Amino acid sequence: MKMNKIPHLKIMYLNPIGFDAYDPFFAEMIKDNKFPNTEVHVTSLNSKVGLMDNLEYRTYNGLISSELIKATRQASIEGFDALIIGCFYDPHLLSAREISGDMVVVAPCHSSVEIALKLSNKFSVIIGQKKWENEMHHAIKSYGYGEHLASFRDVEMNVCEFQKNHDITANKLFQAAEKAVNEDFAESIILGCTCEFGFYQEIQQKLNIPVIDPSLAALKQAEQAALLKKNYGWKPSRKWSSEAPSEADIAEFGLFKEPFEFGNRIIVN
Amino acid sequence: MKMNKIPHLKIMYLNPIGFDAYDPFFAEMIKDNKFPNTEVHVTSLNSKVGLMDNLEYRTYNGLISSELIKATRQASIEGFDALIIGCFYDPHLLSAREISGDMVVVAPCHSSVEIALKLSNKFSVIIGQKKWENEMHHAIKSYGYGEHLASFRDVEMNVCEFQKNHDITANKLFQAAEKAVNEDFAESIILGCTCEFGFYQEIQQKLNIPVIDPSLAALKQAEQAALLKKNYGWKPSRKWSSEAPSEADIAEFGLFKEPFEFGNRIIVN
Amino acid sequence: MKMNKIPHLKIMYLNPIGFDAYDPFFAEMIKDNKFPNTEVHVTSLNSKVGLMDNLEYRTYNGLISSELIKATRQASIEGFDALIIGCFYDPHLLSAREISGDMVVVAPCHSSVEIALKLSNKFSVIIGQKKWENEMHHAIKSYGYGEHLASFRDVEMNVCEFQKNHDITANKLFQAAEKAVNEDFAESIILGCTCEFGFYQEIQQKLNIPVIDPSLAALKQAEQAALLKKNYGWKPSRKWSSEAPSEADIAEFGLFKEPFEFGNRIIVN
Amino acid sequence: MKMNKIPHLKIMYLNPIGFDAYDPFFAEMIKDNKFPNTEVHVTSLNSKVGLMDNLEYRTYNGLISSELIKATRQASIEGFDALIIGCFYDPHLLSAREISGDMVVVAPCHSSVEIALKLSNKFSVIIGQKKWENEMHHAIKSYGYGEHLASFRDVEMNVCEFQKNHDITANKLFQAAEKAVNEDFAESIILGCTCEFGFYQEIQQKLNIPVIDPSLAALKQAEQAALLKKNYGWKPSRKWSSEAPSEADIAEFGLFKEPFEFGNRIIVN
Amino acid sequence: MKMNKIPHLKIMYLNPIGFDAYDPFFAEMIKDNKFPNTEVHVTSLNSKVGLMDNLEYRTYNGLISSELIKATRQASIEGFDALIIGCFYDPHLLSAREISGDMVVVAPCHSSVEIALKLSNKFSVIIGQKKWENEMHHAIKSYGYGEHLASFRDVEMNVCEFQKNHDITANKLFQAAEKAVNEDFAESIILGCTCEFGFYQEIQQKLNIPVIDPSLAALKQAEQAALLKKNYGWKPSRKWSSEAPSEADIAEFGLFKEPFEFGNRIIVN
Amino acid sequence: MKMNKIPHLKIMYLNPIGFDAYDPFFAEMIKDNKFPNTEVHVTSLNSKVGLMDNLEYRTYNGLISSELIKATRQASIEGFDALIIGCFYDPHLLSAREISGDMVVVAPCHSSVEIALKLSNKFSVIIGQKKWENEMHHAIKSYGYGEHLASFRDVEMNVCEFQKNHDITANKLFQAAEKAVNEDFAESIILGCTCEFGFYQEIQQKLNIPVIDPSLAALKQAEQAALLKKNYGWKPSRKWSSEAPSEADIAEFGLFKEPFEFGNRIIVN
Repeated sequence: MKMNKIPHLKIMYLNPIGFDAYDPFFAEMIKDNKFPNTEVHVTSLNSKVGLMDNLEYRTYNGLISSELIKATRQASIEGFDALIIGCFYDPHLLSAREISGDMVVVAPCHSSVEIALKLSNKFSVIIGQKKWENEMHHAIKSYGYGEHLASFRDVEMNVCEFQKNHDITANKLFQAAEKAVNEDFAESIILGCTCEFGFYQEIQQKLNIPVIDPSLAALKQAEQAALLKKNYGWKPSRKWSSEAPSEADIAEFGLFKEPFEFGNRIIVN
Repeated sequence: MKMNKIPHLKIMYLNPIGFDAYDPFFAEMIKDNKFPNTEVHVTSLNSKVGLMDNLEYRTYNGLISSELIKATRQASIEGFDALIIGCFYDPHLLSAREISGDMVVVAPCHSSVEIALKLSNKFSVIIGQKKWENEMHHAIKSYGYGEHLASFRDVEMNVCEFQKNHDITANKLFQAAEKAVNEDFAESIILGCTCEFGFYQEIQQKLNIPVIDPSLAALKQAEQAALLKKNYGWKPSRKWSSEAPSEADIAEFGLFKEPFEFGNRIIVN
Repeated sequence: MKMNKIPHLKIMYLNPIGFDAYDPFFAEMIKDNKFPNTEVHVTSLNSKVGLMDNLEYRTYNGLISSELIKATRQASIEGFDALIIGCFYDPHLLSAREISGDMVVVAPCHSSVEIALKLSNKFSVIIGQKKWENEMHHAIKSYGYGEHLASFRDVEMNVCEFQKNHDITANKLFQAAEKAVNEDFAESIILGCTCEFGFYQEIQQKLNIPVIDPSLAALKQAEQAALLKKNYGWKPSRKWSSEAPSEADIAEFGLFKEPFEFGNRIIVN
Repeated sequence: MKMNKIPHLKIMYLNPIGFDAYDPFFAEMIKDNKFPNTEVHVTSLNSKVGLMDNLEYRTYNGLISSELIKATRQASIEGFDALIIGCFYDPHLLSAREISGDMVVVAPCHSSVEIALKLSNKFSVIIGQKKWENEMHHAIKSYGYGEHLASFRDVEMNVCEFQKNHDITANKLFQAAEKAVNEDFAESIILGCTCEFGFYQEIQQKLNIPVIDPSLAALKQAEQAALLKKNYGWKPSRKWSSEAPSEADIAEFGLFKEPFEFGNRIIVN
Repeated sequence: MKMNKIPHLKIMYLNPIGFDAYDPFFAEMIKDNKFPNTEVHVTSLNSKVGLMDNLEYRTYNGLISSELIKATRQASIEGFDALIIGCFYDPHLLSAREISGDMVVVAPCHSSVEIALKLSNKFSVIIGQKKWENEMHHAIKSYGYGEHLASFRDVEMNVCEFQKNHDITANKLFQAAEKAVNEDFAESIILGCTCEFGFYQEIQQKLNIPVIDPSLAALKQAEQAALLKKNYGWKPSRKWSSEAPSEADIAEFGLFKEPFEFGNRIIVN
Repeated sequence: MKMNKIPHLKIMYLNPIGFDAYDPFFAEMIKDNKFPNTEVHVTSLNSKVGLMDNLEYRTYNGLISSELIKATRQASIEGFDALIIGCFYDPHLLSAREISGDMVVVAPCHSSVEIALKLSNKFSVIIGQKKWENEMHHAIKSYGYGEHLASFRDVEMNVCEFQKNHDITANKLFQAAEKAVNEDFAESIILGCTCEFGFYQEIQQKLNIPVIDPSLAALKQAEQAALLKKNYGWKPSRKWSSEAPSEADIAEFGLFKEPFEFGNRIIVN
């Protein structure tokens, strides 16, 4: 069977916070970078999870979990081919994958490392706060990439500060990346927050090594995963640890009774 | 300063499900095993999380997360010295520890392994379904105990079946434990579900090796942690990755605005 | 800048043996599966490396190394965006990546595992001979995926036997895959030889879990890598361990003086 | 059966050196911190092992081994519920556990890490000399805690210097702990020598993170282990690698013929 | 400087037990296999350590430690170039190395694995009892060879049984080795007890893979180490963790006051 | 059977480059250090591999592979007992071992670490360029020695510079070694390039810790391996992953048809 064309792909980019101010920025990025035939819904969780604009704490990460699970189930039911959990902590990735039905779930940290390690042997991650490192390091080690990590470098900024003054942020990210290269022997750089968007090209040009933008990485890996699913049937396993709850149990326990209400959606065609 | 007496300890045993049918059983166990001067509140999350009687799926685990975080914060505010997350998956242990204030958080899997490894060099865990292994194995490896794990053995039972027919369960658990000893070279056994209560003594007697009951293990390790906190100030660190969100941020983001409503509480004095 | 279209991609699929009998089969597969705008050259090394039709031995792997390096350099000079080293041993992947200039180098084992682990938590690899396991296991561990490997299962066949009798091979691969699932608890299957082509769909359908064809996996990951390179400048790092020899040294040492002569090329447009 | 009361516990605190000058200090600490109903015998090995006041060298560690084994056996015969090997190297912990009969054996390093990791994700150990690190690091890795270790920091003092000038020691320990926090990102501190007693509170107060005193940690974990043994039968396994020599073999080989003579005992009731 | 000749080498082969019945057998083996110019003293510890003829228990291992340390010091003072600790547990190897002065210390397990891994990628160890595995596995992992270990296989015999009936032992060792090859995919075999002497050649011939005799391996590696020391000054480091106690401290603590009295010595010239 | 004498040993020292300028230096070293009865052929690959005087790049390493495999086969056919691959990258060690027949293959890095770790617990490697570290680190980890590595330290010199000005090199190597000891806590030093010959003694004397010369280490370990092979039949396994291609396949594939032509040989008797 001929599988040359890119089929219509339906992808959700979900900011896993109860706050939609960032959605337009990601929508714009997606508009410029998706395949022509890809439909992307950019949205956030709803305000039930609180109004924090970041997941810098495990507490926040814990608070969004239930709604993220419900959102994943909903996206699967709506027929999305792939879901992007739009936060560099890759929050609840394995849990979301369990309930995703035939939808593939990807996330920025995992996606970025996959790209960086095809282009170099060691990468560093530029984060906002030292605080973030423990949880992200844990994720990277659990994926298996711990031995290839050169370092984390932080710029002492919060998530919400990255987009306040572009020059200051660009400068801080560049300096941290440069130190990662010169002192930690990084061969590639990953920007360790989806809100560090808009900076990768300039740093890449200055340092002349790959600098990976995580939300862009996640978008393109999501399209790839969606494509492979549609063309080759490479959809999530439901065997052993990948088994999902049965529909009978879901009904009995009264789960997912009402459709999940996302925040506003920006649909990018 | 003299610290010989066991101070009054206030502990919460929280079944992290939206279903309180098991609470009386745990209350009874606690009544018989707590220090005289310990006050234990046995409770569950509320029905917002769904009515499942188990966390056998990462999906369920994800669904209870937000309420568990809120419950942890609430218990901390109410002045509990220690919180037990009463499920062998130790769900969201690190997240709960972050928001627990001065309250120590313990969980059955971690508590059980600590006990087993003082008494033997290798342990096996007897679980209900093969499905559980991946998530529990991940936890045990992240604690650092992976090299001491002899095996998981499953008995092909669901959580809710363990207490249906005591003889059948006793027999299945014994047979699995015996195989773990003879074929996997386990030197001690951990019962890998809090609902496997009521069986450890019989198996221990038959096999003549330590058999750890996880909820009992968690209760006693919680009392120990509470005692050390009160007497020596050994309370949770709030530095680096253990830092909690600031009260200012919590207020700004509208988190924890209303007191968390636990399910019914059984207070054991 | 708008990056929605798939640019023209130029990819080489290189069978790293001195024997071109398999080339037409891969060309046919590629024809059916590449993007319309991708140009793929399917070729092999030349007969200098010997006439073996497989790399089942480290010896053979060693014998093809020099020509593979020269071929990689040549492909880079010819302006290919990505090179596929078409053997599941991923032979000399890091060495080829060093000398590849701006061309990205991918290989089937690495590509397959990336896909399998987005769809499951544990995978097994179905190989021809027990002999292969040690070298492939070493590669998988060095990538970081060792903890996610359920098992290798072999079918006691040589590379050249896979395509002799389709029914026998199909049956043997299925039985090995089924055992990997039932006895080793694999959640997905990777066919561990590019010559196991033509079988993945049938086994996937029967087992209802993802079954990854390695040459197809490599083709699609190569297109993805080429696309990311062209659109975002994500090309190989040349820093630290990724540094390549200088052109001055190459000239001084008399390396790559003459253009590398590939075997016959099948050009798939 | 009701197990609410703390039974009478009989614990030995054994300084594993041939030198009893430290015993009164530990007895005083124990007096202030044990349960009312616990009987602790504080003692040392006898002078057969030499008169060194420390185990800073593997040589010394080797020299005390035989007597430590004999002492362990003797304590077991005398009916102690738990034995504390009172040195932060945790010398011969696994060997002592083998011959301890129904007595549980604990040690300060292991006990301290258990406490620190309930309160934080990373700990540092403050030692006297760089020399100590290799052996202690090896122990911590063998327990499984290597990934949670932030660093060792040394204060360039010998064991016997810690108690000479309290102000100097307090200052040095504080400075090392502060560096561990600020430069190595420790979230909790363990004082890495039982002779660093008397300092934890002050440093804890200044740094506002948990600072664990190792002999106090060992005392309380010993009481806990003794309690669990008496109430729940959680006594040492004697299966597989935990099997002890048979009494027949012990008799045949002429081992433990005479009761072991401890140094002077201070009995704390 | 010309270093072609093998200098006079003085080596001690020390059976670390208080029992000299095996000494003549090892002396005979050594006589046949040492360099002409090597002088080997074969001896045991004295009866102070007890009369056990094996170190199958950590208890016994602990009981011989002090005397082993004293013996090591004594051998160093007597000018031996190398010491062999003649037991496959490699008991107290790091401790003995610390106090060995300019003498190199080797041991059978470590020596055997070094040889096996130059000849194969995976080895199995044939031991007497399952009991032995935990301690030996720990040693092999601490050396770094854990990933190359195919398996332990036990023959359910005690140390003292190996030489009782040569035919029975030969048969059992062969069968275990054959299973290690066929079921565990071992590529070489190590006999995991110095008392398994006299069997390696026959098994090696039958299986046609390397079968390493551990005492022979230790002898030849000891000669090699002694040679390198004498010719190139490659003697033990005394820096950092390899630092030994100072002579001043040894004197102050009253250690090693009297020369250590070995058991009977058989001197092989 | 008496095995006291050192039999005639036939060893090849192969510089795996197409450039023989270094051969006389190694021949001189070998002349002074081999056993009287050892015959060593010092040679290089031929100019087919290019004229680079180093293997500092994975590219060069890849370019010499085919000829190295052929050379190994040829040396085996000529009846050499052992082959030394004379480069600290230990290039293609496992591949060469597969096709080596009854000849043992050793290499400088592996040989050096074996020696260093009998004399110390931690070693550092002094290399020319940071660039080398990644590949060498990978090798050391795959041998199992990663946990014992203190550090790499580079002197910012190319291979061909080491022998240009002896004083400058001696000074740089000494300073790097001193830093490795003082800042990285190395207890022994390995010179990480065979072209760092002529320096070990001076640094060893100054630092008073073992400093291992890698080509000397390889020579002596090769003699030892050759001796063990001749006297005890400890020759390479050909089972499982150590299996070599069959002669039938070699003939069918037209491999090794003509004898390999080494560069000039210096025969040291």
